[in-house]
Amino acid sequence: MKKIVVALGGNALGKTLSEQLEAVKVTAKAIADLIEAGNEVVITHGNGPQVGKIDSAMNALLLEDPTEEKTSLSMCVAMSQAYIGYDIQNALRRELTARGLHKPVATIITQVEVSNDDPAMKNPTKPIGKFMTEEQAMRLKEQYGYNVAEDSGRGWRRVVASPRPQTIIELDAIRASFEDGSVVICCGGGGIPVRLKGGFLKGCAAVIDKDYCSALLADRLDADMLLILTAIDKVKINFGKPDEQSLDRMSLDDVQRYTEEGQFAKGSMLPKVDACAEFVAKGRGRKAVIADLMQAGEAVKGNTGTVIEG
Amino acid sequence: MKKIVVALGGNALGKTLSEQLEAVKVTAKAIADLIEAGNEVVITHGNGPQVGKIDSAMNALLLEDPTEEKTSLSMCVAMSQAYIGYDIQNALRRELTARGLHKPVATIITQVEVSNDDPAMKNPTKPIGKFMTEEQAMRLKEQYGYNVAEDSGRGWRRVVASPRPQTIIELDAIRASFEDGSVVICCGGGGIPVRLKGGFLKGCAAVIDKDYCSALLADRLDADMLLILTAIDKVKINFGKPDEQSLDRMSLDDVQRYTEEGQFAKGSMLPKVDACAEFVAKGRGRKAVIADLMQAGEAVKGNTGTVIEG
Repeated sequence: MKKIVVALGGNALGKTLSEQLEAVKVTAKAIADLIEAGNEVVITHGNGPQVGKIDSAMNALLLEDPTEEKTSLSMCVAMSQAYIGYDIQNALRRELTARGLHKPVATIITQVEVSNDDPAMKNPTKPIGKFMTEEQAMRLKEQYGYNVAEDSGRGWRRVVASPRPQTIIELDAIRASFEDGSVVICCGGGGIPVRLKGGFLKGCAAVIDKDYCSALLADRLDADMLLILTAIDKVKINFGKPDEQSLDRMSLDDVQRYTEEGQFAKGSMLPKVDACAEFVAKGRGRKAVIADLMQAGEAVKGNTGTVIEG
Repeated sequence: MKKIVVALGGNALGKTLSEQLEAVKVTAKAIADLIEAGNEVVITHGNGPQVGKIDSAMNALLLEDPTEEKTSLSMCVAMSQAYIGYDIQNALRRELTARGLHKPVATIITQVEVSNDDPAMKNPTKPIGKFMTEEQAMRLKEQYGYNVAEDSGRGWRRVVASPRPQTIIELDAIRASFEDGSVVICCGGGGIPVRLKGGFLKGCAAVIDKDYCSALLADRLDADMLLILTAIDKVKINFGKPDEQSLDRMSLDDVQRYTEEGQFAKGSMLPKVDACAEFVAKGRGRKAVIADLMQAGEAVKGNTGTVIEG
């Protein structure tokens, strides 16, 4: 039996509600395979398209009726945790029940503290939500103080900070549920970003990278494995070149060398590999695996995916 | 030590996000009082204004951009659980920490099964969300099949079914967390309405009464007390008449007699009193209390509020 934190990427969830409903069925099968094999599983997930849609809807309400109150991005992240958690827990319960496995499944709304001193807080560059006209973007900027930016000639979008996760506020509740045998879905979208203000935790306009947050969770739960499920079967170097190579295994030294060589794309493979290395470096005997969602069961057995170990 | 299911009404949460942020501070103090006195607490809550706002925002997005996908009402209820749970758990954790109490607090996203045969499913009459023009209402009706109705000359609104809760799907996860010592926030807005379709649970366009759902939860957890916190200090009979009377206590016979006399307003006090009677009738030695949010501590001690017992 292994303790595994499974981080689901965008392909596990789809981009729209109907895509999500179909995608989570496949995802539920992959996760049920892990549970059926006797592993204890905690699930985390991204929320890019979902928090974008919720933020866009809240902005549409603002633009339609200026007397409406602005909805903070942290609240939109909270909502996205339920938006995704509900579908995953519904599909997973169905899959487990069909296999005669009776395990509680629970989505726990999770706050994650970020640092006021994180340089990312002063440099909002991560685009979220729908493309807007310049006029719409300027209205949101002037009336509500949003940061907006033109995105490669395709239109205007809201941009927010993407700081590092420091502390998972509901860790004790997550651990208690997990140790009691529940399949816990948590830290959705990297967690609801909160930071200390006047001695209290308050939401802030940021989105936290879900892979870094998953690595932090896996460390704090002292998991045996961090399993990042995505759309590719293995991590690649010299990607797209004639000498492209799929990796079965990377040591922490390999990770550092390849990173320095610029082998991993920023905002895509780099945070995944970096998060894996962070988790592995902090404890003995830990493994991190990056693998294809469809091959989760084989990846845990070591038959596919890229393993990062010390 | 008592096991108490605390059901929070609208006044515990406010109508807007800024009202909610202030209201939950007061609510957190009331609940921390109960915990400090040694009680084990599960929190449920309504979601009227919140789910209305989320549904309206999703509709504003649809009206702005017809290529957007419709967001189901059950998904809006799910989001409202996080919208409210996040603020409650943030405020409660802060209040408990300030008192030196270290208890995990967790919001668990909750599905609640309703029956396909519930007559309420064929009779959508509960208005939700913002007032619309007739033209907007008709567009939502024709394009997306919404039920809409004119509301007392004030404009058009979406109307949905309000069936009775049958089964709390995440009961096992809620019970495990609760018995492990966590303060659990669950069954928000009466739960995400789901029903059997082709052998599986699927969301449906309904909202479940939070007091009936709270009574079901209290029964299933075999709680000692169902505490419904609202804006009034006691249940009243002959309300607004010269012989108005506040009740300290009602037996189940009293509840039946007063209900037959039409003493309790439909959609307001009637479901509260009825839910209390249901909970009390199903087990020995149970108490239900309807009391003012601000007097929660005293109500649990029996010093205020209206007690319903067998």
